[in-house]
Amino acid sequence: MTTPLYVKYSSIRDRTLSLIEPLIDEDCCVQSMPGTSPVKWHLGHASWFFEKFVLQHYEKPFTPFHPAFLMMFSSYNKSGQTHPDPKRGLFTRPSLSLTREYRNNVNERMEQVLKRSEEDEMLRMLAVLGMHHEQQHQELMLADVKHLLSQSPLNPSYNSQPLLDSPVPPPLEWCRFDGGLVEIGYKGDEFSYDNESPRHKQYLQPYQLASRLVTNREYLEFMKAGGYDNPGVWLSEGWDWMKANRRSHPLYWRESDQGWEEFTLSGAMPLDLNLPVIHVSFYEADAFGRWAGARLPTEAEWENAASQQEIEGCFADNNRFHPSSAGGSTPSANTGGLAQLYGDAWEWTQSSYSPYPGYNPAKPNENEPMSFVWDEAVGEYNSRSMVNQYVLRGGSCAIPKERIRASFRNFFPADTCWQFSGIRLARDLRDS
Amino acid sequence: MTTPLYVKYSSIRDRTLSLIEPLIDEDCCVQSMPGTSPVKWHLGHASWFFEKFVLQHYEKPFTPFHPAFLMMFSSYNKSGQTHPDPKRGLFTRPSLSLTREYRNNVNERMEQVLKRSEEDEMLRMLAVLGMHHEQQHQELMLADVKHLLSQSPLNPSYNSQPLLDSPVPPPLEWCRFDGGLVEIGYKGDEFSYDNESPRHKQYLQPYQLASRLVTNREYLEFMKAGGYDNPGVWLSEGWDWMKANRRSHPLYWRESDQGWEEFTLSGAMPLDLNLPVIHVSFYEADAFGRWAGARLPTEAEWENAASQQEIEGCFADNNRFHPSSAGGSTPSANTGGLAQLYGDAWEWTQSSYSPYPGYNPAKPNENEPMSFVWDEAVGEYNSRSMVNQYVLRGGSCAIPKERIRASFRNFFPADTCWQFSGIRLARDLRDS
Amino acid sequence: MTTPLYVKYSSIRDRTLSLIEPLIDEDCCVQSMPGTSPVKWHLGHASWFFEKFVLQHYEKPFTPFHPAFLMMFSSYNKSGQTHPDPKRGLFTRPSLSLTREYRNNVNERMEQVLKRSEEDEMLRMLAVLGMHHEQQHQELMLADVKHLLSQSPLNPSYNSQPLLDSPVPPPLEWCRFDGGLVEIGYKGDEFSYDNESPRHKQYLQPYQLASRLVTNREYLEFMKAGGYDNPGVWLSEGWDWMKANRRSHPLYWRESDQGWEEFTLSGAMPLDLNLPVIHVSFYEADAFGRWAGARLPTEAEWENAASQQEIEGCFADNNRFHPSSAGGSTPSANTGGLAQLYGDAWEWTQSSYSPYPGYNPAKPNENEPMSFVWDEAVGEYNSRSMVNQYVLRGGSCAIPKERIRASFRNFFPADTCWQFSGIRLARDLRDS
Amino acid sequence: MTTPLYVKYSSIRDRTLSLIEPLIDEDCCVQSMPGTSPVKWHLGHASWFFEKFVLQHYEKPFTPFHPAFLMMFSSYNKSGQTHPDPKRGLFTRPSLSLTREYRNNVNERMEQVLKRSEEDEMLRMLAVLGMHHEQQHQELMLADVKHLLSQSPLNPSYNSQPLLDSPVPPPLEWCRFDGGLVEIGYKGDEFSYDNESPRHKQYLQPYQLASRLVTNREYLEFMKAGGYDNPGVWLSEGWDWMKANRRSHPLYWRESDQGWEEFTLSGAMPLDLNLPVIHVSFYEADAFGRWAGARLPTEAEWENAASQQEIEGCFADNNRFHPSSAGGSTPSANTGGLAQLYGDAWEWTQSSYSPYPGYNPAKPNENEPMSFVWDEAVGEYNSRSMVNQYVLRGGSCAIPKERIRASFRNFFPADTCWQFSGIRLARDLRDS
Repeated sequence: MTTPLYVKYSSIRDRTLSLIEPLIDEDCCVQSMPGTSPVKWHLGHASWFFEKFVLQHYEKPFTPFHPAFLMMFSSYNKSGQTHPDPKRGLFTRPSLSLTREYRNNVNERMEQVLKRSEEDEMLRMLAVLGMHHEQQHQELMLADVKHLLSQSPLNPSYNSQPLLDSPVPPPLEWCRFDGGLVEIGYKGDEFSYDNESPRHKQYLQPYQLASRLVTNREYLEFMKAGGYDNPGVWLSEGWDWMKANRRSHPLYWRESDQGWEEFTLSGAMPLDLNLPVIHVSFYEADAFGRWAGARLPTEAEWENAASQQEIEGCFADNNRFHPSSAGGSTPSANTGGLAQLYGDAWEWTQSSYSPYPGYNPAKPNENEPMSFVWDEAVGEYNSRSMVNQYVLRGGSCAIPKERIRASFRNFFPADTCWQFSGIRLARDLRDS
Repeated sequence: MTTPLYVKYSSIRDRTLSLIEPLIDEDCCVQSMPGTSPVKWHLGHASWFFEKFVLQHYEKPFTPFHPAFLMMFSSYNKSGQTHPDPKRGLFTRPSLSLTREYRNNVNERMEQVLKRSEEDEMLRMLAVLGMHHEQQHQELMLADVKHLLSQSPLNPSYNSQPLLDSPVPPPLEWCRFDGGLVEIGYKGDEFSYDNESPRHKQYLQPYQLASRLVTNREYLEFMKAGGYDNPGVWLSEGWDWMKANRRSHPLYWRESDQGWEEFTLSGAMPLDLNLPVIHVSFYEADAFGRWAGARLPTEAEWENAASQQEIEGCFADNNRFHPSSAGGSTPSANTGGLAQLYGDAWEWTQSSYSPYPGYNPAKPNENEPMSFVWDEAVGEYNSRSMVNQYVLRGGSCAIPKERIRASFRNFFPADTCWQFSGIRLARDLRDS
Repeated sequence: MTTPLYVKYSSIRDRTLSLIEPLIDEDCCVQSMPGTSPVKWHLGHASWFFEKFVLQHYEKPFTPFHPAFLMMFSSYNKSGQTHPDPKRGLFTRPSLSLTREYRNNVNERMEQVLKRSEEDEMLRMLAVLGMHHEQQHQELMLADVKHLLSQSPLNPSYNSQPLLDSPVPPPLEWCRFDGGLVEIGYKGDEFSYDNESPRHKQYLQPYQLASRLVTNREYLEFMKAGGYDNPGVWLSEGWDWMKANRRSHPLYWRESDQGWEEFTLSGAMPLDLNLPVIHVSFYEADAFGRWAGARLPTEAEWENAASQQEIEGCFADNNRFHPSSAGGSTPSANTGGLAQLYGDAWEWTQSSYSPYPGYNPAKPNENEPMSFVWDEAVGEYNSRSMVNQYVLRGGSCAIPKERIRASFRNFFPADTCWQFSGIRLARDLRDS
Repeated sequence: MTTPLYVKYSSIRDRTLSLIEPLIDEDCCVQSMPGTSPVKWHLGHASWFFEKFVLQHYEKPFTPFHPAFLMMFSSYNKSGQTHPDPKRGLFTRPSLSLTREYRNNVNERMEQVLKRSEEDEMLRMLAVLGMHHEQQHQELMLADVKHLLSQSPLNPSYNSQPLLDSPVPPPLEWCRFDGGLVEIGYKGDEFSYDNESPRHKQYLQPYQLASRLVTNREYLEFMKAGGYDNPGVWLSEGWDWMKANRRSHPLYWRESDQGWEEFTLSGAMPLDLNLPVIHVSFYEADAFGRWAGARLPTEAEWENAASQQEIEGCFADNNRFHPSSAGGSTPSANTGGLAQLYGDAWEWTQSSYSPYPGYNPAKPNENEPMSFVWDEAVGEYNSRSMVNQYVLRGGSCAIPKERIRASFRNFFPADTCWQFSGIRLARDLRDS
C-alpha cells in the first residue's frame, strides 16, 4: 500500500519548519546579499507555489490567504522574470508569524484538495513538483542562512553539531572510464525535472575521475603555492573576479591567531584539513584543476561514472550540514569506485548549463488548459536560465538522501560561492 | 529643587523604548537603505555612547556588557570614520531582546555612577551630551522606520494616529526683517552643541520670510506646472539627481486611482493638501523656490527671525509625527510673526554646513585627561561633516519640544528626503 | 614553387594599412567603449606580436624599436591577463605616424629574419601565427571603427560602397541532417588554432538548419510582434541585459522620419529588408529563435553541415563589409544546401566556448626552449577565455575568404553586438 | 583712442590657437575623464558661443557654418543642462582641421558684425562675455591637456619650459587682518561675472593669512607624518574619497627610483620642493590645514586681504604654466603683504559656492528681446551650479594676468584635483 500523497506532503512541509527552529525572527527576515533570499521569503514562496499552481485551480472556490501574498512571494518580478527581487529583505511585514499562518492555511487547504482529488493525475504532478520545489528551497535556506550568520561578528551558530574528528583521507587515485557511446539523462518513472530529459546518447573519450573530492589540505597547498597570485592558472574572467572581490581563500575561511578557521553552521571552527573543500566558485575550482595538472569533469563524464554506483554519502538527514571525510571508506579505485559522489558537496563540472539534444519544454496544449499551468510551474525552474551558468552534479550535505539521483543537474553562475560546492578532478586518459 | 540627573536620564531612555513599542522584532532589524540604520542599532548605539564615554571612565571597575558591542554599536567604522556601516542591517545577532538587556544593564550601571558622582562636572556634561544624543536618535529612528515600512506593499502602520481634518491655511504673506549687523549662535547656559558656537556677528541685508511653510497644495501646483520637467528651475546637480532617481514627486507621495496618497507613520493616507509638504530634498526645495520667484533663506536670516519668537508648534509629544496645518493660527505678518517655525518640518536653508567664525573644536588638554574623552564624544557629532551638507533649521514634528532652540543646526546632504524636511521661502526686500 | 613566406607576410601587412586609408589620425586614436580598441592600438599590437614572439628570439641582436612599446602594445595587462586595458584610448602618444614607423621597422626586421631562416620550422610557425593574428585584428579594426564612427552625429562614412539593390531572398526552408556519430574539429595540414583540435567524435540527433540567415524583414516582424516586450521568449539574463541597456532593436538600427535606417561603414542608409540581420547579441538571437519556434544550432550541428559544402559568400575582398542577400542564389534545400554559411555574418550557436574533448594546450617542453614561446604566443588567443562566452561559426563579410574554414571557432560574450553577428535557425527533426 | 573691439577679439582668439600649437591632432580629440573635454571641443565650443549668442542675433542673414555644430559644441546637453557630455571624446568627426575652419569662419563673420555695429551696447557686452568665456576655456584646455598627457607611459611633454632652479622660500609667516564690517564683491566698471555681484557688506572676525602658499616640501612632511593614514585630520567624506580613489599624494606626483617626480606640462620632472603644492583636492587642502593646526580661509577673508594688494605673480604670459617659488620676493608680513596671491595656484577656500546676498540673476525683460539672450549667455556660467562646489580664489599660473581680479570666484567640486589648485592657510587671531 502506497503512502497517501498528503502524508508525504506533510512530512516535507514539516521538515521545512524544523529547519528554521534554531532561528529567531530576525534571522528569518534579512537578506544578506542580492543573490540570496530571506528565510521568511523561502517559507512564503514555497507555500505560494502550492497556492498558485495547485489551489488556484483545484480549490473551489479559490480563497487566497492574502491577495498581496500572490505577488510578494512570487518568484516572478514585475516584468515577469524570475530573477530575485533585491528588495525581498526589506519586507519586515508580513511578520514571520503571519507567514507561518499562511503556511498552515495552505496546508489545510492542500489537505482537503489532495484528499478529495488524489486520483487526478495533473493535480498529483503539480503537488509532487511543489514538494520537490520545497525541498530545493530547504537547501537554499540553509545556504542563505549560513551566509547571513557569517556576517555577524558574534559568529552565531545555527546548530551546534560538533565537527567530528575526521580521519585522514586516502591518497587521491584516478579511476578510469572507457567512455564510448554512452547514454545520459533521466531514465525511470519517478519524478525528475525536465532539464534531465530526454535521455540521449553522447560519445565520450576515455577519461579518469579522482577517487575523492579535493580536501581542504590540498586546497591550502594550492594557496601556499601562490595559487591566488598566479594568473597562468586562472580563467581571465576568474582572475578579474578574484581580484575585484579581493578573494584569497574559500568564502568562509578566515585566518586567526590560531591558524585557519572556517565559519560553519555550527559557528567558527578550526579548519578541518581532512574534509573536502567547499564554498569555492567555478573559477576557483577551475584554477585549482589547472594548477593540479587536471581539469573539471564534463557533466556527461560525471553522470556516466556516477550512474554505475550506489548512492551513499553524508546527507542532511544527519542534521550536520557539513561534508564528511572520505577517510577509510574510499572504494578501491581499481574497481572504479568513487567516494563522496553524493551528499558531501555539489561538484562543479566544466559544462555550461544548456538544453539536452531534443529538449523541448513541454508545449502547452490548447485542448488541455491545465497544460499551461504545468508549463508555468515547471518554467519556474529551468526555462530561460540556460546561459552563463555552470552545471554542478552530485548533491551536498545539505540535502536529504531522497533528493539524490545521478541525473540531477544543479546550476549556478561561475562566481557562486555560497552554495555547498566542491571539486572533483578529472583528466584525459593520455595524461595518466 | 532641581530634578536629579538620573531621573531625567531615565525619562529620556524610557521614551526611546516607548517609541519602539509598535514595532515587531523584524522591523527593528532591517536597514532599508545605506543612509539609514536599523532600530536595533539605534538602541544599541545610544547605550554604547554611555558605556563608551561615561561608564568606561567613571565605573570602577569598568565591566562592559559584551566586548564585541563596543565595536558593533560604535558610530566609528574600522577606519575610524563616522559614516554608517552599510552592513549594520545584516547583523541579526545580537537579537533585539539581547540588545534590550544591554540597555537595561547600561541603565543600572549609569544609575549607580550618576548617583555616586553627580557633582562631577565632566560626568554631568558627558551624561547630558549622551541624553541629547539619544534624543537625536529618537528622531532618526522614526525617520528610518518610516522609510522601512514604506517598502512593504502591505502599507503597514507604525501607529494609527488619524490625520486630523486640517483647516485651509491662510494665504502666504511676506514678513519683513531689517537685517543689519545681527548676532547669531547659541546664547545661554543650557546645553548646546559646539557647532552652534561661538555666537558672532553677521551683517544681513533686509529680507523677507514667508509667514508659513509651503503646503502640499502649493507643491502640487508646482508639479502640475511641469516643475519636474523644467530644467530652468533646477540646480544642474539637482536635475541630474532627479532624473537619475526618477523622482517626480516628494518621497512618500503615491498616485492611486483615488488620487494622490502619502505614506505616513499611520500607513497610506489621502494627501492632505493643507499640510506642509515634507520629505523633499534640498534640490526640490530650491527648485520650488526658483519656480515661485523666491529662494531659500540663509541660516542667519532664519535664526535672526526665529530668535524673536516664542517656540510653539506641532511636536512629537503628541505622538502624531505629522506636521499640522498653519490654519487659523498664523500670526499677523505685519508683526513679523512666522507660523510653523518649529515642530512641523525641518526647513532647508541655502547655507552649506560650515564652521562659525572662530569655531574651534574644543582642544583636548594634556593636563586634563577627560578633555580627550569630551573631544571624542562631541566629535561624534559635528567634526569632519562640514562639507557638502546643507543646514536645516527649526525642528520637525518628530522631536519633543524640549529639544527645540533657535540656534540648533541640523544638516544633511542635498539629496536627503527621508528626514521630515520642508520648505519656507525667503526673498530679498527689493523683490517685494 | 611556393610563395616565399615574406611575400605572404607583406601582403597581409599591407592589407592592414590599406584598411586604414579612409581614416584620419583622430579616428585611429579613440576607444569608443571598453570592449573595443583604438585602430592605432591594433596597428601597434599586430607589430608587437612579431617583435615579441619572432624578433625577440630570431633577431641577433634583438633591437626593439622602443622599449615602452613592448608593454603598451601588449595584449597582456599588468597583472598578466589578456583582457583589454580600458585606458588604451587615452594614449594619444605614440602618434599614429610613429606607430606606422614602428610597423615599417618591424617589417624590415622581419624581412631579414624570414629571408635568413625561412627553413626554421618554429620560426615559420610563429610567423604564420602572427599573420593569422593580424588578419583577425583586421576584422576587429573594422568592427571597432564602425562602432566609433556610429557615435558621431555627423554620420561619417568609412568608405562609400553603396548598398546594392538586394533581391528578395527565397522563403526560408529547412535542410535536414541525419546526425549520428560524426566527427568535428580541424582536419588537414594547413594552419588552424589549437581550439579547433583535436578532431573528435560527437553523437548528433537528426536536426534541421535554416536554408539561409534571418533577414532584417523577419527581425522587424519580431519587433513589431512585441518581441522586445515579451519576457516569455527571452533568457532571464537576456531580458535584464536588454532592459538595462534600453535595447529595442539591433545595435545600429535607428528610427527616422523616413523609417528605419541602419548605420553602416558607408554611413547611415535606409534599412535593406532583404539583407541578413547583423549586430545582434546572443540574447537577441536566442529570443528571436524562441519566438520563431526554433532554436540556435549547436556548433557541432553547424560544423557537420558546413563541412559538406563549398566555401562561398560575400567576403571582405569586395571591400564592401556588408552581407549580401541570399536572393536567387539559394541552393536547393532538398539537397541540403545552405546559403550564406560564410562571408555574410558570424552565426551565433547555442554552444558555450569550451575545450574539445582531449584538448590540451601545447605543453611547453623543458628541452625545447622555443616551445615556451609558442605556448605563450598561442595562449594569446584561447587559453583562459573558456567561460561565459558563446561560439559563433562561419565568418562575416569583414574577413577575407582565405581566412574561412568550417572548423573555425569564433567566440564572444552573450551581450556582444558590435561584431558582424547574425542568426541561422535550427530545429529538431520532430519539430518539422 | 581705445583699441577696437575686433582687435582685442582677434588677439584672444589667436592666443587659443597658439596654445594648441604643440599638440598633434590626436591630442586634441581624446577625453581623458568625464570631467574634462577634448581640446577640439573647447575650440569648437568657444566659437559656438559667438555663433549662438552673437551671430545668430546680429548676422543678417544668419548662416551657420554647420547646423549640427550648434548642437555638438553646445554646453547644453539634450535635457538642457550644462554638465558635460561624457561622449564628447568619441566624436572623431568633425576633424580638428574642420573645427579650425569653423573658427576661421566664425572669426570672419564676427569681424564683419563687430565692425558694422560696434556701437551696439548689447553686442559689445555679448562679444566681451564671449572673449572672457574663451579665456576661461584656455585655462581649462591646459588643465585637460595636462591630464590627458599624464596618461601616456611615454610621459609626453606639452612644451619644454624647463623648471627653473627655485630659491628656498622664506618661512611661512602669519599676516594679520582686523576684519570688522568690510565690503566684498566687484567694484568697478570693467567686465565681471554676475556671481561677483552685488558688492555687499560682511562682518569678519580678526584673522590671519599665511604669507605664502604651502610648498611641496611642507606637503611632503604631511605625507611622511602619516597624513593619509590619519582619519582624525580628514573630513569624513574626504577620507572616503581618498580611500576609494587610493590617493596617497597629489594627483601628478609619482614615486620613482630617483625619489618623487611630478608630471608637468614639460613632462615628468623631479619634484621641486620649493614650489607651491598644486593639484590637490579641497579634501586634501582641508586635511593639510587641520594637520597644520590651521584652516582654509573664507572667500571674504581672502578677498578682503587681496583687495588691498597689487596684482603680481607668475602668469601664463610666460608660457611656463607652473607656479614659481615665493623665494626672496615675499613681502614683509609686518605690512600684511601676501606672496603668491595671484598667478601661481587657485587657492581653495572653505566657502561653498553660493549667491551673494541680493544676488539676482539678470531678469530677462519682455520689452527687451536681447535681454533673454544675455540671460542665456550668462547662464552658461553660473546659474544652477550653486550647490556642492567650493570657491577658489586668486588665479593660477595657467591664466593671463589680464584675467586676474580680487573679486573673481572660481568654483569646483571638492574632489577636483586636475585644476591648478593649491593651499593658503588661515587661522583665527586667538590662535596666534
